[in-house]
Amino acid sequence: MPKQPYRLGIAGLGTVGSGVIKLIQSHADLLAQRAGRRIEIIHVNARDRHKDRGVDVSAYHWADNPQGVMESVDCVLEMIGGEEGAAKLLVETALQKGISVVTANKALVAHHGAELAQIAADNKASLAYEAAVAGGIPIIKALREGFAGNEIKAVYGILNGTCNYILSAMRETGRDFAAVLKEAQEKGYAEADPAFDVDGIDAGCKLCLLIALAFGTRPDFKSLPITGISHITSTDIHFAGELGYRIKLLGLARRASNGDIAQRVEPCMVPVRSTLGAVEGVYNAVLVEGDFVGESLLVGRGAGAGPTASAVLSDVVDLAKGRVSETFGIPVGALKAPRWQDSSKAQSPFYLRLSLLDKPGAIADVSAILRDHEISIEKMIQHGRDPQNHVPVVITTHAAAQADMKKACALIAALPAVEEKPCLIPILEL
Amino acid sequence: MPKQPYRLGIAGLGTVGSGVIKLIQSHADLLAQRAGRRIEIIHVNARDRHKDRGVDVSAYHWADNPQGVMESVDCVLEMIGGEEGAAKLLVETALQKGISVVTANKALVAHHGAELAQIAADNKASLAYEAAVAGGIPIIKALREGFAGNEIKAVYGILNGTCNYILSAMRETGRDFAAVLKEAQEKGYAEADPAFDVDGIDAGCKLCLLIALAFGTRPDFKSLPITGISHITSTDIHFAGELGYRIKLLGLARRASNGDIAQRVEPCMVPVRSTLGAVEGVYNAVLVEGDFVGESLLVGRGAGAGPTASAVLSDVVDLAKGRVSETFGIPVGALKAPRWQDSSKAQSPFYLRLSLLDKPGAIADVSAILRDHEISIEKMIQHGRDPQNHVPVVITTHAAAQADMKKACALIAALPAVEEKPCLIPILEL
Repeated sequence: MPKQPYRLGIAGLGTVGSGVIKLIQSHADLLAQRAGRRIEIIHVNARDRHKDRGVDVSAYHWADNPQGVMESVDCVLEMIGGEEGAAKLLVETALQKGISVVTANKALVAHHGAELAQIAADNKASLAYEAAVAGGIPIIKALREGFAGNEIKAVYGILNGTCNYILSAMRETGRDFAAVLKEAQEKGYAEADPAFDVDGIDAGCKLCLLIALAFGTRPDFKSLPITGISHITSTDIHFAGELGYRIKLLGLARRASNGDIAQRVEPCMVPVRSTLGAVEGVYNAVLVEGDFVGESLLVGRGAGAGPTASAVLSDVVDLAKGRVSETFGIPVGALKAPRWQDSSKAQSPFYLRLSLLDKPGAIADVSAILRDHEISIEKMIQHGRDPQNHVPVVITTHAAAQADMKKACALIAALPAVEEKPCLIPILEL
Repeated sequence: MPKQPYRLGIAGLGTVGSGVIKLIQSHADLLAQRAGRRIEIIHVNARDRHKDRGVDVSAYHWADNPQGVMESVDCVLEMIGGEEGAAKLLVETALQKGISVVTANKALVAHHGAELAQIAADNKASLAYEAAVAGGIPIIKALREGFAGNEIKAVYGILNGTCNYILSAMRETGRDFAAVLKEAQEKGYAEADPAFDVDGIDAGCKLCLLIALAFGTRPDFKSLPITGISHITSTDIHFAGELGYRIKLLGLARRASNGDIAQRVEPCMVPVRSTLGAVEGVYNAVLVEGDFVGESLLVGRGAGAGPTASAVLSDVVDLAKGRVSETFGIPVGALKAPRWQDSSKAQSPFYLRLSLLDKPGAIADVSAILRDHEISIEKMIQHGRDPQNHVPVVITTHAAAQADMKKACALIAALPAVEEKPCLIPILEL
């Protein structure tokens, strides 16, 4: 006997919501085969009923508000976005009613994940969010199921396509951050308000979810140290290339043998020939280290209607087929409170770029400060001379603690010969 | 109320079977959290009861034969190997009894997949084989679930770690196939009988399963054109480098717009800077192209006890948790009989290496044959001169049909000036 259709209510018809509808309309039979039953859209809702979205929604019931999409459905697709407000209310209410939720909303799950997971568990509903991290890459499923036999040692990678596009375009065109950002906005690769992406918040929310899944800990966004990319100049991009590196915004998490977790989101220099150094443009890449599986890499498009819709439907097909998982891979009661490693103690070599007055003694002053903090210089680059003017000078160091490096950097910034804020970027030999 | 433990019977205690036991012993609590119940080994069986396998199996019931591991268990782990015989009998019998089976046996599933899937479906049992393809890479899960919202357009990659190790080592050391193979055997990277790996059969079985999952077709190993790597010499490896390529044994499948599928296993030249060109040693890599997700790449260790055990436990945890899937992602009755594209019509540029007598007219004869088959030469390389002796000459061509190229190659091989069999390798600009 054929199973009942799996009924959906969709709230939010932006890029993601419209992409999901387009996918369901074009692949109805394929989805039915893979899910073992038909996937049916019952209700849709968005702010503006009459906007042209490139998909025909006239066959579905139009709900007057987001809450209206819940009636008589098996699953709500929350495609509204935002960590509070309508999205949160809808997800909470649906889960309380025992209706499963699929969302692409990384901010919501990063900020309220443990609480939502508890509501889901209490009401035997599922909360699925494959689309929230790394677009079309099935990294949530990989961590939750594919690598389930492993103790995960590390998870890290390029988690924000907008930043990776901007950094790649800066390198390819030699243009500055502001110019490339403007172009990215025009192309639709960056939002009108770019802060969520370029300040690293988006990558931070995603890393937060990967950490919870990898290490069985409660999501804890507030404790994550985050640095964005807006201070990176085309000069830095140029020097990185000269030194054999690429600058990438990375989300990094590693569990030490004592169980403490080191975590941060930060632009880093990675070797141009490394796996992550080769990932360009809007692509995302995630590396996972498990104790049995070893190192695995997943690469794919990080955003956009198609990849995100693909991820949403992966969750929908799982739920329709009855393949149910805990929100963070283990029972919510078993999630531990994470112990974070003090990131100021993280050791790595550093890249330091100064705008330095070209006169005798200027470099001696900088060197003395580094020496006083027991930071040893690996290389120093200054191209050409321009006496009595400011020239870019780049110093790379041997491994040093972040806290020491930052202290030294603050003293260097205060030297009279130093113009502008120095640019400090850790170097990762991946 | 806690669920009953999930009970396993394990037949075969070689590298994979022992690795699985080691994983279960070291991660019992973690597995219980992820599966929602404890994973318990009840029976084990292998040919030799007293062999030291580096794991303690004394706590488990020793079955006197493979069939003995089935009694009162939820799942049988078939770790015996081989496409017929004890492995096949065990899997068939278990499925007939409604007992789910997890296996790493690519040959068994590639040869008898549709028939076994039918038995599984008839008896409401599952047949899972994540470990059969690309070791620790969760590619089966990705195709079956992660990319479930996509019509898959292509799936291809490096599917055999032994061949990739041999080709990488030949390049790094400049040594010949036979010497590197011997070393690989001593290191345990290649079997005593290497034919299954180096003749491309192993990669063929894996590609066969990926095709079934990607395109919803019945596995059809017999129709797959397969070329191994034993004809590749260190001279070819050297020339490949000079031309900017690496030689990789690839499994390739692509569905044309009319639904026909092009498939083959063959050593190919890929650009050294391409994604696949950079995958070295025992690593495997699989690329998937989906209509919504775009291009995705998964890389990881292709074999070995750890990665294979990780894949086996991924299946076991899924089954224990109740996350059940059809053998090939859709109901067995819905699997189509594939229509294969004639691979002799496949177009690509080619690399042709000859051992050619260094005398006037020799190259003219070769060129004339290529011209007669309408194959145009892109580049010709001969290093140095050695009149009246045989020297290696390499020709790269513009795109030509495989059938034409093979015909021309046979005529060239018959020229009096040509010594040894020419080496013909397609060039893929990925």
